[in-house]
Amino acid sequence: MTEKGSLIVLSGFSGVGKGTVLKKMMADHDNYAYSVSATTRLPREGEVNGKDYYFLTKKQFESMIGKAEFLEYARYVDHYYGTPKKYVEDKLKEGKDVILEIEVQGALNIRKMSPEAVLIYMLPPSAETLKARLSGRGTETAEVISGRLKQAYEEIRRIDQYDYVIVNENADECAERLHSLIQAQHLRTNQNLAFLGRIREELESFS
Amino acid sequence: MTEKGSLIVLSGFSGVGKGTVLKKMMADHDNYAYSVSATTRLPREGEVNGKDYYFLTKKQFESMIGKAEFLEYARYVDHYYGTPKKYVEDKLKEGKDVILEIEVQGALNIRKMSPEAVLIYMLPPSAETLKARLSGRGTETAEVISGRLKQAYEEIRRIDQYDYVIVNENADECAERLHSLIQAQHLRTNQNLAFLGRIREELESFS
Repeated sequence: MTEKGSLIVLSGFSGVGKGTVLKKMMADHDNYAYSVSATTRLPREGEVNGKDYYFLTKKQFESMIGKAEFLEYARYVDHYYGTPKKYVEDKLKEGKDVILEIEVQGALNIRKMSPEAVLIYMLPPSAETLKARLSGRGTETAEVISGRLKQAYEEIRRIDQYDYVIVNENADECAERLHSLIQAQHLRTNQNLAFLGRIREELESFS
Repeated sequence: MTEKGSLIVLSGFSGVGKGTVLKKMMADHDNYAYSVSATTRLPREGEVNGKDYYFLTKKQFESMIGKAEFLEYARYVDHYYGTPKKYVEDKLKEGKDVILEIEVQGALNIRKMSPEAVLIYMLPPSAETLKARLSGRGTETAEVISGRLKQAYEEIRRIDQYDYVIVNENADECAERLHSLIQAQHLRTNQNLAFLGRIREELESFS
């Protein structure tokens, strides 16, 4: 009975497993569209244009800013990051639930632009688990890990601005709970005003 | 990871099937507590004290009002109806999800008293279905049915004050969706502040 898809913003500490959970959820369920961000930073090894990011030149990015083609964008250090607007709007109109996997500042910008967006923050079962996962990757130095944990500590203050938190203890189970949570958003009253209007007209016709 | 149960208020047009769906959901899933309302009206045939309602005298009811023992109460025509507070508070503390099946005015009173309450309105797939269900009972006169439909028409204007609407096309499937919706409420950020606090302290201890 829903008219439009939901705009879902997912954030979470670095190392919490957002990518794995999203991949799982989108493999098991249709109806999702993943919004790829744009950036002016260079691709890292293995990153694919249009899949991991849209890699743009600074000139291309600024031209899109000028044409108001971003839902939100921000500049970090030397690079721009942004969410192209058209894809998100098209997919929502098609009734898809659109997933934005972005960090806290971007998420709070989305909230301002689109108050009906649903902000979800993914948490580890404990900080100890997060530390173990970051160390377990075996690719990061102790310094990098310590920086990530410090960043998590800074970030956790701002999580109270999110609508929901979801704990990733097990990726399969977390993917299912995330899916249920997103599907529940379709039942929000303000997502069903046209349906309510139809019932109301029908009831009126009876009297 | 939730600290407390959720307070769930379910309303819906007369004849929409709330009772059947709730019975099904509570038979299939633990963790629910059903709050029985109190009233000063006389029991109808087959109604059981303490199960359908707590049937109280006017004196008993007014004494409870005097002691602030209702979460909300209202007077309709000649009778009082109310939600005893103690049961609700005890069960929430135990971590149960407490279900109040009450009408719109009571629901909006609960919202004022307990802003964290979740208001859900159950709808038929169409007004035609509602009419058919009311007629299909075979126990109501055409006049009574017409009155119920008129009441539904009046009520639908106020549904936009509810958080969610859920369509009852099939009771089994509706019970599962209602259960998912209620479980999703446990992920609300403001229900998990103690958990967030623990992670924060743990992260702090790392630095």
